[in-house]
Amino acid sequence: MLDFDKGDPTMYEAYWKSVGDDFKITLPASILLSYFTNPKSFCWYALPKLEQEIKNLHNLVGNAVVEGRHIVVGNGSSQLIQAALYALTEPLDLPSPINVVSAAPFYSCYPQISDYVRSGLFKWGGDAHVYIDHDSQPYIEMVTSPNNPDGELRGPVVNKVNGMLVHDLAYYWPQYTAITDPADHDIMLFTVSKCTGHAGSRIGWAIVKDLDVAKRMVKFMEISTIGVSKEAQLRAISILEMISTNSCPSNFFEFGQFVMAERWKKLREALQGIDVLQIPNFPPQHCNFKTDFLHCTPAYAWMKAQVGINLEEVMQEESIRVRGGKTFGCPSNYARLSMLGRDNDFDLLLKRLPSILKRLAH
Amino acid sequence: MLDFDKGDPTMYEAYWKSVGDDFKITLPASILLSYFTNPKSFCWYALPKLEQEIKNLHNLVGNAVVEGRHIVVGNGSSQLIQAALYALTEPLDLPSPINVVSAAPFYSCYPQISDYVRSGLFKWGGDAHVYIDHDSQPYIEMVTSPNNPDGELRGPVVNKVNGMLVHDLAYYWPQYTAITDPADHDIMLFTVSKCTGHAGSRIGWAIVKDLDVAKRMVKFMEISTIGVSKEAQLRAISILEMISTNSCPSNFFEFGQFVMAERWKKLREALQGIDVLQIPNFPPQHCNFKTDFLHCTPAYAWMKAQVGINLEEVMQEESIRVRGGKTFGCPSNYARLSMLGRDNDFDLLLKRLPSILKRLAH
Repeated sequence: MLDFDKGDPTMYEAYWKSVGDDFKITLPASILLSYFTNPKSFCWYALPKLEQEIKNLHNLVGNAVVEGRHIVVGNGSSQLIQAALYALTEPLDLPSPINVVSAAPFYSCYPQISDYVRSGLFKWGGDAHVYIDHDSQPYIEMVTSPNNPDGELRGPVVNKVNGMLVHDLAYYWPQYTAITDPADHDIMLFTVSKCTGHAGSRIGWAIVKDLDVAKRMVKFMEISTIGVSKEAQLRAISILEMISTNSCPSNFFEFGQFVMAERWKKLREALQGIDVLQIPNFPPQHCNFKTDFLHCTPAYAWMKAQVGINLEEVMQEESIRVRGGKTFGCPSNYARLSMLGRDNDFDLLLKRLPSILKRLAH
Repeated sequence: MLDFDKGDPTMYEAYWKSVGDDFKITLPASILLSYFTNPKSFCWYALPKLEQEIKNLHNLVGNAVVEGRHIVVGNGSSQLIQAALYALTEPLDLPSPINVVSAAPFYSCYPQISDYVRSGLFKWGGDAHVYIDHDSQPYIEMVTSPNNPDGELRGPVVNKVNGMLVHDLAYYWPQYTAITDPADHDIMLFTVSKCTGHAGSRIGWAIVKDLDVAKRMVKFMEISTIGVSKEAQLRAISILEMISTNSCPSNFFEFGQFVMAERWKKLREALQGIDVLQIPNFPPQHCNFKTDFLHCTPAYAWMKAQVGINLEEVMQEESIRVRGGKTFGCPSNYARLSMLGRDNDFDLLLKRLPSILKRLAH
């Protein structure tokens, strides 16, 4: 069984292996024992250099405004989503939880992140397209851009006066999409998992406009996990710095763009002229980072089979595990295929594709 | 202002500095990118060697039964408390949250950990001594042993048939208390923060009897943070192994016992014959690890001033920050003083103590 279900970014292993062992960090047992690394900052558990490297990288890529913004470090962006929901809802002190919505197809983890401890502050409210705003209640819309699973660049869809927005920009990096503008929203979430491929580190960050919101997010981090591993922060610093200063033997984003472009090209070739399995097309867009027009090459292929087919089940019969459409708020003739795995697995997928297409045609 | 409020274990820096830089780990950029390090285990994000080193250390110290038990790794024991509350309450599917209780003086963070997201699964139920079990409702009792803040070895106090227990054993190590028995409870929580002093790593673990409970705790870890930093796990492996194999230039637990014993001795001397500020006395107990009788030397001094005095405020006037009794469910003539800080700060505290005692006597 080959796993194309999870977005495990193992495609980046090849790049970091090529960089070699000259780029490494060394951790003696005597450093970073304390909970506190920046007691004067509101984000007291973050290493100051991590904040700087995060800002340097965004300034290089041009994908987010960081000047005058507050950086909240988290154990991956999943925890930061929860911190944002907490920070936005806690001061409202409402008698019932407010709705968290996102436009289908939405990231499959939003419902369980919103609901797993049955919070009285927030709850999953479903597809933003069908959200009905009764009595101008406050709500939170998760805006995922590029969207997971379908790769679309997105804005909010509800657009009511009591709406609060959380922008999940985990995939707004040049290997996946054209960088059209520096994003400039109230709360923007990023993660090294999808930027550099170091998912095992569990390092994410939020760029936050309002200091009080940022402070409440840090309060959440304090109660939830008393901050974030210093070891992981140190490695993230070293890796972000390597990328920003382009001190690796080859350029990181060029590697990412090359691998993604090759995979999408092969997948498109394999599906050309086939109507039983479709994937989205993206018009070329100008990328300010690349200073050229780009075809987007998202982290996932959002596949569509004919109505009535359970695409996840059909692919499972050929030992390919994908994530079915229902978890994204869509019918089960849709499924998400991760494009972030290892080369070998991707080649095996391409080999099994003809059998899958044969099944779909019957 | 000197901080004796937080239990930041910086006293251990001196030991790890003395160990020197021979004991260090090296992390190239190319390793541990994946979310998964043990896909065949229920705790798929843990490094298998960390589980082994945790078991080795417990077997050496004799403070917990690990044979046939399941290890759940967390971002510190704070997150594991939440994982345990989730794992115990989620399958009950009750219409209202169940009570989480602990005997006063209780760890000051239990109330906010239980209540911050206003969970529908669990809520803070207060002092276990006054908990009234209406209609045999299920409840969870946090049993902290040795107790934070007062250092007592404890058992459960409610003892009703519908009770579920979580044993918080963060301080059940030979530097703080006699190891009287290998603890053997349903859910036992530990953390490197208080064991080795590496609070900045955010590594804790639970030893769990029931595999289904352990699996639900891992489910919580998955939704909350998608696991635990691999870098922090690697350093914890190296540090636990150094201690278990006694491969440091001096014995780790002997260092801890020596520092704690010296500090408690100095504090007792400074308070001898003084009735305006009292600290607990502990009868000598046999420690199976030390194979000798020991006076307990807890991580905190639980101080008591005369009734009506706000001890936290009095000490603040002498620029000593402690944590007031109210946060532990006690009157404000009590306060908790951390014994885990740096030598210099502890010496400064002893110098300021006469002025504090003078204030308390007036």
